[in-house]
Amino acid sequence: MDCLQAIKWERPRLAILNQLLLPHRREYVEITTCEQAHHAIASMQTRGAPAIAIVAALGLAAEVCGMAFAGDAEARAHIRQRLAYLQTSRPTAVNLFEAAGRLAAVVDAAESDVAAAYVAAAERMLEADVADNRAIGRWGSEYLGALAGDKVLTHCNTGALATAGHGTALGIVRDMWRAGQLARVFFTETRPYNQGARLTAFELACEAIPATLVCDSAVSALLRADPAVKAVVVGADRVAANGDTANKIGTYQLAIAARFHGRAFVVAAPSTSIDLALRDGAGITIEQRAPDEITAAS
Amino acid sequence: MDCLQAIKWERPRLAILNQLLLPHRREYVEITTCEQAHHAIASMQTRGAPAIAIVAALGLAAEVCGMAFAGDAEARAHIRQRLAYLQTSRPTAVNLFEAAGRLAAVVDAAESDVAAAYVAAAERMLEADVADNRAIGRWGSEYLGALAGDKVLTHCNTGALATAGHGTALGIVRDMWRAGQLARVFFTETRPYNQGARLTAFELACEAIPATLVCDSAVSALLRADPAVKAVVVGADRVAANGDTANKIGTYQLAIAARFHGRAFVVAAPSTSIDLALRDGAGITIEQRAPDEITAAS
Repeated sequence: MDCLQAIKWERPRLAILNQLLLPHRREYVEITTCEQAHHAIASMQTRGAPAIAIVAALGLAAEVCGMAFAGDAEARAHIRQRLAYLQTSRPTAVNLFEAAGRLAAVVDAAESDVAAAYVAAAERMLEADVADNRAIGRWGSEYLGALAGDKVLTHCNTGALATAGHGTALGIVRDMWRAGQLARVFFTETRPYNQGARLTAFELACEAIPATLVCDSAVSALLRADPAVKAVVVGADRVAANGDTANKIGTYQLAIAARFHGRAFVVAAPSTSIDLALRDGAGITIEQRAPDEITAAS
Repeated sequence: MDCLQAIKWERPRLAILNQLLLPHRREYVEITTCEQAHHAIASMQTRGAPAIAIVAALGLAAEVCGMAFAGDAEARAHIRQRLAYLQTSRPTAVNLFEAAGRLAAVVDAAESDVAAAYVAAAERMLEADVADNRAIGRWGSEYLGALAGDKVLTHCNTGALATAGHGTALGIVRDMWRAGQLARVFFTETRPYNQGARLTAFELACEAIPATLVCDSAVSALLRADPAVKAVVVGADRVAANGDTANKIGTYQLAIAARFHGRAFVVAAPSTSIDLALRDGAGITIEQRAPDEITAAS
């Protein structure tokens, strides 16, 4: 599991695994300022909706630990301004906005030692994310374990690399494997950014879970050929009040394929990914990334 | 159009555009023997079910033109043996088997000048493929032109590079564009071999047809977002007697996506791609290619 720790926090030091270099190199980047945290998120050194929120929160915690404020008013103003700045790093990660809102409420409510209260709240967020993921894994594997079939398919990377640890959809896969419920997990390349081929492959190889990489285009052919693939399990960037879910550009097509073949389709996410202010998915901003992610010939 | 001539035949010289080098370099390879034709097909220097059949037929024609036979019996035996050899180059291309069968019948039936009869038959095959494609383009564009919407989506490469000229599914796209029926064509990357991103992109850019590359995974999101994409148009490697069609691994998923969104799904292929000896698709051999096509990290 050590090779999979994407976020290392030992107050006051934050280091993140630079995921741009995986699977070729394992290299940690130290984060001491919000500018560095912003860059890590925007450049996708760190990624995954839950992990982004934690890195932003702890990046500011590292910065705050290194500062001396003239008083609580100054600390409160600084933290609020930096939380607003950090939210500009990724437009789609609701967990980040939700985390920033909760942290802002903490500093507003703190009657003394605002900086210390902030750091403690950011640390609780890290612990809560791991606990949430373990609960998601437990419930998800119980639910899927009851269905016939001993294989599942997952998309993108929703594992230890995308969260504070364990993972959401991949956390369920881990728990199914440990419970002896899983013969094999299929995972997609996840074009255009190849999070499956690069990151999920790395995680599954780390833990020696039997796994097969498939092209996004091949999922329907796989579901048709192998009835033991009982479910498609994915994460979420954001869930609207009606259950509409934003994840990757290919997730919608996987849901159609699962439905056509009569397989379960499970979205695994913490409650912090649910945005009750959004009535439905039409209100979710979809991130438009640079065209050269698919036009640059290799 | 000149930049798109994949097969150049001027008796007795055959040259093929080496598609492994596209889009970076345009380089022709001269084919004078069946071994070279076999290699060109197996290594995917040339590809596309109709083009493979033509290159095999003309490769043997080039070889035969350079030989002096002791008599018709020797010519007939040589040609039959070489046709059998050429059929081992790709396991799935029924057009190749069908062409070999027809050419074998020609040399069996020829009462004199067997070698000359063979070469003439191979040349007629080249001309017939172009004529077939022009007819496919005409009929397909008439059919699709009558449906509401002014965009289509295609998969893989089925154009001038995959045929003796013009193309099947992409031939329809060409004719729709020339007839003023087409505002834009979307085309998929076509993982794992990227024939769309590499070859269809090249063809569409050559002719300045407005075109947008999309990931295979993004097709359903596109169909949902843009109702003007009225049809998915694909080619076929092989069609069984009941209409079951083998094309690329992703074609099945595109058919499901088209059906889910209520769009037309058109398979464009010459009658030589129809294998009446096969009752349904279950009997079609699916080519298993090397795993490193998707596991080699770029």
